[in-house]
Amino acid sequence: MKILVINGPNLNLLGQRKPDLYGHKNLQEINTFINDYFKRVKLEFFQSNHEGAIVDKLHEADGNFAGVVINPGAFTHYSYAIRDAIEAISVPVAEVHISNVHNREDFRKTSVVSEVCQGTVSGFGVYGYIMAVQALAHRVKRDAK
Amino acid sequence: MKILVINGPNLNLLGQRKPDLYGHKNLQEINTFINDYFKRVKLEFFQSNHEGAIVDKLHEADGNFAGVVINPGAFTHYSYAIRDAIEAISVPVAEVHISNVHNREDFRKTSVVSEVCQGTVSGFGVYGYIMAVQALAHRVKRDAK
Amino acid sequence: MKILVINGPNLNLLGQRKPDLYGHKNLQEINTFINDYFKRVKLEFFQSNHEGAIVDKLHEADGNFAGVVINPGAFTHYSYAIRDAIEAISVPVAEVHISNVHNREDFRKTSVVSEVCQGTVSGFGVYGYIMAVQALAHRVKRDAK
Amino acid sequence: MKILVINGPNLNLLGQRKPDLYGHKNLQEINTFINDYFKRVKLEFFQSNHEGAIVDKLHEADGNFAGVVINPGAFTHYSYAIRDAIEAISVPVAEVHISNVHNREDFRKTSVVSEVCQGTVSGFGVYGYIMAVQALAHRVKRDAK
Amino acid sequence: MKILVINGPNLNLLGQRKPDLYGHKNLQEINTFINDYFKRVKLEFFQSNHEGAIVDKLHEADGNFAGVVINPGAFTHYSYAIRDAIEAISVPVAEVHISNVHNREDFRKTSVVSEVCQGTVSGFGVYGYIMAVQALAHRVKRDAK
Amino acid sequence: MKILVINGPNLNLLGQRKPDLYGHKNLQEINTFINDYFKRVKLEFFQSNHEGAIVDKLHEADGNFAGVVINPGAFTHYSYAIRDAIEAISVPVAEVHISNVHNREDFRKTSVVSEVCQGTVSGFGVYGYIMAVQALAHRVKRDAK
Amino acid sequence: MKILVINGPNLNLLGQRKPDLYGHKNLQEINTFINDYFKRVKLEFFQSNHEGAIVDKLHEADGNFAGVVINPGAFTHYSYAIRDAIEAISVPVAEVHISNVHNREDFRKTSVVSEVCQGTVSGFGVYGYIMAVQALAHRVKRDAK
Amino acid sequence: MKILVINGPNLNLLGQRKPDLYGHKNLQEINTFINDYFKRVKLEFFQSNHEGAIVDKLHEADGNFAGVVINPGAFTHYSYAIRDAIEAISVPVAEVHISNVHNREDFRKTSVVSEVCQGTVSGFGVYGYIMAVQALAHRVKRDAK
Amino acid sequence: MKILVINGPNLNLLGQRKPDLYGHKNLQEINTFINDYFKRVKLEFFQSNHEGAIVDKLHEADGNFAGVVINPGAFTHYSYAIRDAIEAISVPVAEVHISNVHNREDFRKTSVVSEVCQGTVSGFGVYGYIMAVQALAHRVKRDAK
Amino acid sequence: MKILVINGPNLNLLGQRKPDLYGHKNLQEINTFINDYFKRVKLEFFQSNHEGAIVDKLHEADGNFAGVVINPGAFTHYSYAIRDAIEAISVPVAEVHISNVHNREDFRKTSVVSEVCQGTVSGFGVYGYIMAVQALAHRVKRDAK
Amino acid sequence: MKILVINGPNLNLLGQRKPDLYGHKNLQEINTFINDYFKRVKLEFFQSNHEGAIVDKLHEADGNFAGVVINPGAFTHYSYAIRDAIEAISVPVAEVHISNVHNREDFRKTSVVSEVCQGTVSGFGVYGYIMAVQALAHRVKRDAK
Amino acid sequence: MKILVINGPNLNLLGQRKPDLYGHKNLQEINTFINDYFKRVKLEFFQSNHEGAIVDKLHEADGNFAGVVINPGAFTHYSYAIRDAIEAISVPVAEVHISNVHNREDFRKTSVVSEVCQGTVSGFGVYGYIMAVQALAHRVKRDAK
Repeated sequence: MKILVINGPNLNLLGQRKPDLYGHKNLQEINTFINDYFKRVKLEFFQSNHEGAIVDKLHEADGNFAGVVINPGAFTHYSYAIRDAIEAISVPVAEVHISNVHNREDFRKTSVVSEVCQGTVSGFGVYGYIMAVQALAHRVKRDAK
Repeated sequence: MKILVINGPNLNLLGQRKPDLYGHKNLQEINTFINDYFKRVKLEFFQSNHEGAIVDKLHEADGNFAGVVINPGAFTHYSYAIRDAIEAISVPVAEVHISNVHNREDFRKTSVVSEVCQGTVSGFGVYGYIMAVQALAHRVKRDAK
Repeated sequence: MKILVINGPNLNLLGQRKPDLYGHKNLQEINTFINDYFKRVKLEFFQSNHEGAIVDKLHEADGNFAGVVINPGAFTHYSYAIRDAIEAISVPVAEVHISNVHNREDFRKTSVVSEVCQGTVSGFGVYGYIMAVQALAHRVKRDAK
Repeated sequence: MKILVINGPNLNLLGQRKPDLYGHKNLQEINTFINDYFKRVKLEFFQSNHEGAIVDKLHEADGNFAGVVINPGAFTHYSYAIRDAIEAISVPVAEVHISNVHNREDFRKTSVVSEVCQGTVSGFGVYGYIMAVQALAHRVKRDAK
Repeated sequence: MKILVINGPNLNLLGQRKPDLYGHKNLQEINTFINDYFKRVKLEFFQSNHEGAIVDKLHEADGNFAGVVINPGAFTHYSYAIRDAIEAISVPVAEVHISNVHNREDFRKTSVVSEVCQGTVSGFGVYGYIMAVQALAHRVKRDAK
Repeated sequence: MKILVINGPNLNLLGQRKPDLYGHKNLQEINTFINDYFKRVKLEFFQSNHEGAIVDKLHEADGNFAGVVINPGAFTHYSYAIRDAIEAISVPVAEVHISNVHNREDFRKTSVVSEVCQGTVSGFGVYGYIMAVQALAHRVKRDAK
Repeated sequence: MKILVINGPNLNLLGQRKPDLYGHKNLQEINTFINDYFKRVKLEFFQSNHEGAIVDKLHEADGNFAGVVINPGAFTHYSYAIRDAIEAISVPVAEVHISNVHNREDFRKTSVVSEVCQGTVSGFGVYGYIMAVQALAHRVKRDAK
Repeated sequence: MKILVINGPNLNLLGQRKPDLYGHKNLQEINTFINDYFKRVKLEFFQSNHEGAIVDKLHEADGNFAGVVINPGAFTHYSYAIRDAIEAISVPVAEVHISNVHNREDFRKTSVVSEVCQGTVSGFGVYGYIMAVQALAHRVKRDAK
Repeated sequence: MKILVINGPNLNLLGQRKPDLYGHKNLQEINTFINDYFKRVKLEFFQSNHEGAIVDKLHEADGNFAGVVINPGAFTHYSYAIRDAIEAISVPVAEVHISNVHNREDFRKTSVVSEVCQGTVSGFGVYGYIMAVQALAHRVKRDAK
Repeated sequence: MKILVINGPNLNLLGQRKPDLYGHKNLQEINTFINDYFKRVKLEFFQSNHEGAIVDKLHEADGNFAGVVINPGAFTHYSYAIRDAIEAISVPVAEVHISNVHNREDFRKTSVVSEVCQGTVSGFGVYGYIMAVQALAHRVKRDAK
Repeated sequence: MKILVINGPNLNLLGQRKPDLYGHKNLQEINTFINDYFKRVKLEFFQSNHEGAIVDKLHEADGNFAGVVINPGAFTHYSYAIRDAIEAISVPVAEVHISNVHNREDFRKTSVVSEVCQGTVSGFGVYGYIMAVQALAHRVKRDAK
Repeated sequence: MKILVINGPNLNLLGQRKPDLYGHKNLQEINTFINDYFKRVKLEFFQSNHEGAIVDKLHEADGNFAGVVINPGAFTHYSYAIRDAIEAISVPVAEVHISNVHNREDFRKTSVVSEVCQGTVSGFGVYGYIMAVQALAHRVKRDAK
């Protein structure tokens, strides 16, 4: 089973930006942490600050991955293009946020992508990525029965 | 490690109410499913249609449990009393929703408790309870180091 | 045919609270008035100031009654728990308000339960209960043909 | 006792427009159904797609009828002229909607006439007209005592 | 100089509807009262409950009258058709309201026609019609200099 | 193939009202312009300032025309009666606006009929009528294959 | 009969500020224009850019004047202090605006004083002051009968 | 004179929950503090996390107490049932909040009960209870004169 | 201990303006009533209809008074200048309203100063001033321990 | 005459994404369909999921094309950058939507580009592209006269 | 070249009020700091807590100064009187805020004067005054060429 | 000292787009104008129509520049990605707008980046860039003391 993990804008600064909120691990360390957790799931990681590049990547995922985990960063709040891309492909997508987006600025409470995702995980730190991968894997196994 | 799982109003009807949305398992079967998953976590289950009873239970959890998983049902959308109870106790609380609350009626998009919970999981079916228990357990272990 | 009549919070004060608006009959007299009107319909009456008790009662009604008439009192305006209970059961529910809720305070114009009820009657005084019982009975008869 | 039944715009298409929502009877059959129900009440029926014609008719009703049953159709949502006409006459007016206006489009949830009507009935199909006539008749009898 | 006075829906009931608010004179008496006040201004009076008829009348006024005084009644609050008619003709139009529309229901505070009228008079009773005719006459004289 | 072209209130003043915005042709010239464009489509033209008359005309169109082109003028913004008429008939309806309604007053940005029309054309001057007739004709031909 | 005419902030700049909108007469010339119009009404004029000074003046007017004409300038839109002063005194107050406040910036459409004034005149240029004085004088004469 | 003091949900945690905001005294100590302050007033204390229990208690207070002091906790913001109970009884009710509810979260700024209470005290710590009891006692004495 | 009592605009008319709402005592009598109540507190009274004068007075209070009681009258609803003045000084300020501001016009429900005051008292008539002085005095004594 | 046709994000998936809504043709087939329709118009096609690339393309169009047809996809709803690009160039731009954007999700009803386009066509399927090209060509010919 | 620097309410407390936000210099020191910076610009300083006094001063500036720098303090958010004064005079006005008004309370984000000022500077501390003076001086020099 | 100047989308069209609003200089000329002004500040200029490219550039600026001046063009109004990038880096950022964004379209009044910038300059034409560079330089010097 192959699962794609996408990180949106500014998440390349993880470990360096607001460590109290986002933790001290950088993106490479987080990817390693996630990768080490799973034995039977093959993960691919992708990060971009470009909305169009993420849309392109989602299109590519269709047919090539069993699921997509996405942390859209700030695009969460206004990128209807990413929303339409998620809706247009048939791969299940799980939305992840490292921090609890509900107790920060008001604009972070609105997600334009949640509606078309399989589900959402927020507030559990980088462990949230692992939860999302597990949920997608669980679903694939259940559907496979 | 002891973790409390609370289910709010109408969740006693699970398996019977909108099975396409909530699945075909009843609450007893779901609890068994969750319980069977964990070896080292001791779970206690509680369901009530009474807001006051849930507030009372949350107060009791303080000092007696390492974490609380709560699916507040319809109370999610207006019970500031439950919100204040969660905020008042020092046990971490994880919010769970079986369905994806973001692609249903508008009123289901607002949660008055998310802001004071550790994190939120929604849309992954009853598997979401397992994700939430794991996240709380992961946190307890990490803090214990 | 058995029909359940539920009255929500503060309706135990009928006859005593704002008689110009709600009339001079107390709840006992109103129940008698309704009961005397029908020969072939068996009515059961229930009143509670507790939201959870009304949710419990609605669950019990499922399978035991041909219809439910409910005046949710102030719960009309915010109890999504009662709304979900009405939606979860398969018995048709008719909403009744004694006064015309549209020419009073603004908050009384919003009902969170109307959307999931069979229909609504408001402004016709206690006669509204009789109208609602008749409508449910008419429906049962029509469906029985 | 004479009661006037007014139907607003597009209700001349009943039976043909959205039968799942409005039923299969056409307006003539509905009027006959209502008329047959009552022995002692003399009913007059009026339908128009013209707002001004309905205002004129309401003015004529003053002094000539004991009550008016009105289904204002789409005028429900914006005709302050009909509202003012209802408020200006001294005949009690009952508002009827065949479908449950609360579980359809948002604009159908707002009625600019409810505030000045005696009461409102919605969601009980064409039987709602009979409920409204009964309620007006009940009121006339009660006031006559 | 010829000036047209238009009265909108329900104003044919003046003298009879809410006399505390609108006064005890009927529309005929008001028209006579206005007519008697002016010697050199020739007045024509028109009342209709039909929005389309008022639009037609405004079109006819173009080129035939030096000014129009209009009390649009309830159409004030939603008739963009009358608004467009006023804007489309080159005759100056003065808006009149008998009562003070600002201390009544909220919907009466919004006028969709004020923006395209020459000016507005409200709250001075039927004397407001005289004020409006005078203002239009004053303007005609000033422009004629 | 027969197509009906309806123009709403104040469009009888075309050529005379705001020519910078609406052009210098009057309604008769526009109808001729449209008529001359088509060889195989038989057009009928109808204009009224009366909402009820337009509703009546739409009802008549059902079964008699292959399509309706409508410029509802100011009724665009509030006539739920016309909206319901369009929804109630089975003829496809195309909405046309001569000017670009999106760069004018705020109230012109809201159309209560677009939702139930086949499609909308705005901002292309009187050529928009031709576009709309073509689109309906194209659809009829495609469906006929 | 004595009537007080109050002008609010920036109206001391009349004749100089936006003459296309407010006309070419300065405040002194306007006062003379008004004064010359009336023979039997004794007028007093007051202008201030200080909200508190206008409140003080309104208090003094109580018992000393038969009416007050006020153009509150920008205070129209937010001075609840002036509103309370108008409401607190028993002299009738007429609100005047030189320009048509409804076809300018949005904030000018809201008046916090209209609700407590006798009536409002706007859009008729400086002639509006004369209309307001006449209306107050008419009222005094009518009440004196 | 007997006065009832009601505390709503989560106030049983006083002394323990956010002491910086609510102070270090627990509910028992606060009740003793209030009780010790008064010689001639007989106080009864009641706390519940159940909305229905508070409604029941308010009904019981009618006729048995000279006044009620209530701190509705989180119910302040949504319990129309408690609001209706306060409005339905004839005992004067004083609303108390320990903290200044206006400089905390937005939802705490809205009280659905203030409108039907005699008055409100907030921000003066637990001394606010004493102020409220005094105010009710003062009123009783004044009315008794 | 010295405490300053400030009254805002139109409160110089107390006893004369709406006595049913504000009582029959004039401001002088109220000040005497308050003054007579306290033995150990030295009170100074100040009233002005000028926003700037109240800001000046608040600045002077800093360092010269142990507390300020303020009834900002209509300034309550929009004077951010007074709000900033209260926030800028280090003296605790208590806000008082004679009437219950929550069951009057909508604009009276918003206070722009509550957020920066120590606390608020409303609805207890002129006795509210005494409550506020006591609360400030209580605080001073407690802090002095 | 050269006209540029731009398609925004996710429109490269046409034929594959929601065929009931968008039809079964893929983008290449649609482009061929459009191209085949016109003899004298030279068309260039461009599609990108990158907002910046579309802005760049619009800048290039200035001076090189007689018109631009754009279907901005999801960028319709938030890309003020594309809006400013359209406004900044002097080529007329026609906005096209394949589906009727008014009867889908709420966010699709808002277009931030309509205000600066020549006109808009929506709901007529891929035939809408042909309508838009024709309208631009008609305009060029008319202006050329 | 003469430039006037106006400071609004509570700015006389600079240095003393929130030094973390506004800095440690008092108003006299700030004025000296600004004055010392410029050789060829003659500055006059004015501060008042009275809205009317600021309006008066702005009127006086017309014709006497080449530019005005204004920090309206709290008046920024509601004084339409100051806005109208700025609009009414022909001197260019530059708005200055010491702190970044966008990351504080919500009400500070709205400025009713920005729309009529030449430009705005905020967030650069007291150096913002120097920037504003320079900008006005630059403009005067450029226009003088 | 090195400072980076970033210009967002469509600003490559300066001099050509709306010269009345933005001036007649093109971007190259503006950059030269700014560059010539400063002797001791080394400036680097960057322009892109791609949101992602600006985010990348901001990340690069961290540690390499003493400050950033940014005119985000249309991204000002919705790019939370740029906002997060500004917040994530430790370089002070100054926001510049050439025109006065407050007296144009409504959407231009909202900036999602102001909250995380050091300060904002708008309305002073291209001179605003010089003001922003100076302010950043002033800050660097002050902090260096």
